[in-house]
Amino acid sequence: MSKKNAFYAQSGGVTAVINASACGVIQTARKHKDKIGKVYAGRNGIMGALTEELIDTSKESASSIAGLRFTPSGAFGSCRFKLKSLETNKREYERLIEVFKAHNIGYFFYNGGGDSADTCFKVSQLSKALAYPVQAIHIPKTVDNDLPLTDCCPGFGSVAKYVALSALEASFDVRSMAKTSTKVFVLEVMGRHAGWIAAAGGLLEDQGIPVVILFPEIEFNQIKFLARVDQLVKTYGYCTVVVSEGCHYPDGKFLAEQGSRDAFGHAQLGGAAPIVANMIKQALGYKFHWAVADYLQRAARHIASKTDVEQAYTLGSKAVELAIKGYNAVMPTIERISDVPYKYKIGIAPLSKIANIERFMPRNFISKDGFGITSRCKRYLYPLIQGEDYPQFKNGLPVYVTLKNELVSKKLPDFELDSR
Amino acid sequence: MSKKNAFYAQSGGVTAVINASACGVIQTARKHKDKIGKVYAGRNGIMGALTEELIDTSKESASSIAGLRFTPSGAFGSCRFKLKSLETNKREYERLIEVFKAHNIGYFFYNGGGDSADTCFKVSQLSKALAYPVQAIHIPKTVDNDLPLTDCCPGFGSVAKYVALSALEASFDVRSMAKTSTKVFVLEVMGRHAGWIAAAGGLLEDQGIPVVILFPEIEFNQIKFLARVDQLVKTYGYCTVVVSEGCHYPDGKFLAEQGSRDAFGHAQLGGAAPIVANMIKQALGYKFHWAVADYLQRAARHIASKTDVEQAYTLGSKAVELAIKGYNAVMPTIERISDVPYKYKIGIAPLSKIANIERFMPRNFISKDGFGITSRCKRYLYPLIQGEDYPQFKNGLPVYVTLKNELVSKKLPDFELDSR
Repeated sequence: MSKKNAFYAQSGGVTAVINASACGVIQTARKHKDKIGKVYAGRNGIMGALTEELIDTSKESASSIAGLRFTPSGAFGSCRFKLKSLETNKREYERLIEVFKAHNIGYFFYNGGGDSADTCFKVSQLSKALAYPVQAIHIPKTVDNDLPLTDCCPGFGSVAKYVALSALEASFDVRSMAKTSTKVFVLEVMGRHAGWIAAAGGLLEDQGIPVVILFPEIEFNQIKFLARVDQLVKTYGYCTVVVSEGCHYPDGKFLAEQGSRDAFGHAQLGGAAPIVANMIKQALGYKFHWAVADYLQRAARHIASKTDVEQAYTLGSKAVELAIKGYNAVMPTIERISDVPYKYKIGIAPLSKIANIERFMPRNFISKDGFGITSRCKRYLYPLIQGEDYPQFKNGLPVYVTLKNELVSKKLPDFELDSR
Repeated sequence: MSKKNAFYAQSGGVTAVINASACGVIQTARKHKDKIGKVYAGRNGIMGALTEELIDTSKESASSIAGLRFTPSGAFGSCRFKLKSLETNKREYERLIEVFKAHNIGYFFYNGGGDSADTCFKVSQLSKALAYPVQAIHIPKTVDNDLPLTDCCPGFGSVAKYVALSALEASFDVRSMAKTSTKVFVLEVMGRHAGWIAAAGGLLEDQGIPVVILFPEIEFNQIKFLARVDQLVKTYGYCTVVVSEGCHYPDGKFLAEQGSRDAFGHAQLGGAAPIVANMIKQALGYKFHWAVADYLQRAARHIASKTDVEQAYTLGSKAVELAIKGYNAVMPTIERISDVPYKYKIGIAPLSKIANIERFMPRNFISKDGFGITSRCKRYLYPLIQGEDYPQFKNGLPVYVTLKNELVSKKLPDFELDSR
């Protein structure tokens, strides 16, 4: 049997460390040249496989690939594009197989969150359904930290570190200004349905900062919220609010919905912070400032968590090892052994139990009043934000890698993607 | 003549490095105990002098004071509070003198921007006007970089570094997502009247990032702006917009005005980013993301510019030396000698020529089309963002100092501040 090539692609919202996983995949594959041929990266995720836009990563120098470990975003382009079911769109699956055959691809590594795990699972079933032998391994990635069966998801530790750090710095600022000016600072963070990112703001409590967290898991109660803010400002002179973009009223309506929806049909959120800030101003009269971190939080490689970077790299590397061992339809996971000292091992979970399942904050991670986190949650969070892993700087700015991204020559006729 | 004590206070919006100036003042004064007695810090700026809330910095350990160099915000509290003229409110000036006399204060160090330079200048005239001998030295501080007679202002280099870095990271992100999702990222930054902070976004051009800058100095022209964004997206597939909060229409109306005003009567801005983003969506149909950095940008000590930290420290230190030499009504400044290699020396400027004067971006720093910066501007900016000066981290978060801030016993009756 001839040596098979590998396909690797990045999917969904990118993170500060998804390229560290790519680095793990490519460096590990290069170490096993007897087993794996080339690694072809999909230009813009799975779409690159369908359109036969395959980036030949063997054209990239060892130092460029090593630089991926320090570079945020998706170096090969990502996509928001979900494969439909085999029954609905068999044409796309057949095309995938044509492309895999044409380029002798036997390994499929997909680096993404819940929606992407679904795509990866569908591909993993191609062997059975369409009699083409391919091993599909999912590499977890999501700042939302909402994949099941893994203790945490690469990308999350870094965004948690960014949020805790940024909220800490801004809280020092508002504390300085509170006497005659701003008394409440509101920071909006990501987290459509799960409040993991917002939870990181709760770590500020340990620094003596009065902080209120608004989770998507807790229905928004305006009266209780305003009372809590007022109490903190009266006690400390100021307070910080960390609001999740997914925070919503009991009827499900988000505090701020911009109206547009992404390709997966999810509402595009943003703007909860100004709404919360104005609510406080109107009810309590406190001067406010607000920030919306948006992409800054998930792209902040300069202050990535070292733990997170290492796990991202390791899971990418492990995915290749699993493929070599013959695994299919699985995802390497983080299994926590202990909080202090932090110890973990790499586990293996079946994709059938991961795709399309969201893991929310457990209720016992959220304080009774719903506005903070418990010590249990803190024990969970602290290990994930440990360590710094600074990129090199040149001319005052970080040295991030932009790859050549040379495409392999096409062997097949063009393929029209269905609009989604 | 008995040895005089010093008064030091922080004023206006705080920065990532104003405490580095405080560190410079206190450490230098401690080295000159033969000339300067204690350093009393005003709790909440000049208000602390009026209310006789004087923090005894001699109660702080050497390591706490050293820690100030790495701590963002104003460690003693700041204020937005401007002294009126001697004619309008003689009562406050007389009170200042009472407090200075009661605590044997002969040196007045005020750390702030243009409004604060005005307060400092008024205090410097007390010797003449009310026959109380006090030497007032202003220490420049403003992220807005808008003080005249100094090449740059401490606080600016760090916010410029933060903005360039954050915009770079977010641009990598949107570049990854552009194929199927976000095509335009909009970052709103500070700068009410001067576009120095927004200009830092222009450095991204050197990293191959398509970027559009919206300056307060250039009247907003929606048609030209949309055409430029469209052209860049069509060429590169994506683009980044950095919009100054002070960006406004030809009639002076800000893109976004929240309605409320601060204690100096300035409009409180914020929210230009969502307005610009929605404008793009409506006219061009491009999916967007937007961020408002707000306090995060000026509090981001974790990624402060080393050059900026050093200058902030040096100017604080120099202010004390000037006082010892007998100077009054002056501000130490940065005088640039060369761009490459970057060389500067410390100059001295008279406060009479600084107070209430704003320095805008020179037109030849802004590109002809008004949407970018010139190579001249880049040569100006690069030296100011050079170097990193990381704080220590513990448990995943930076170690920032909170002082004891013990007050000196009051010797005078209470004083009611006029409402402002």
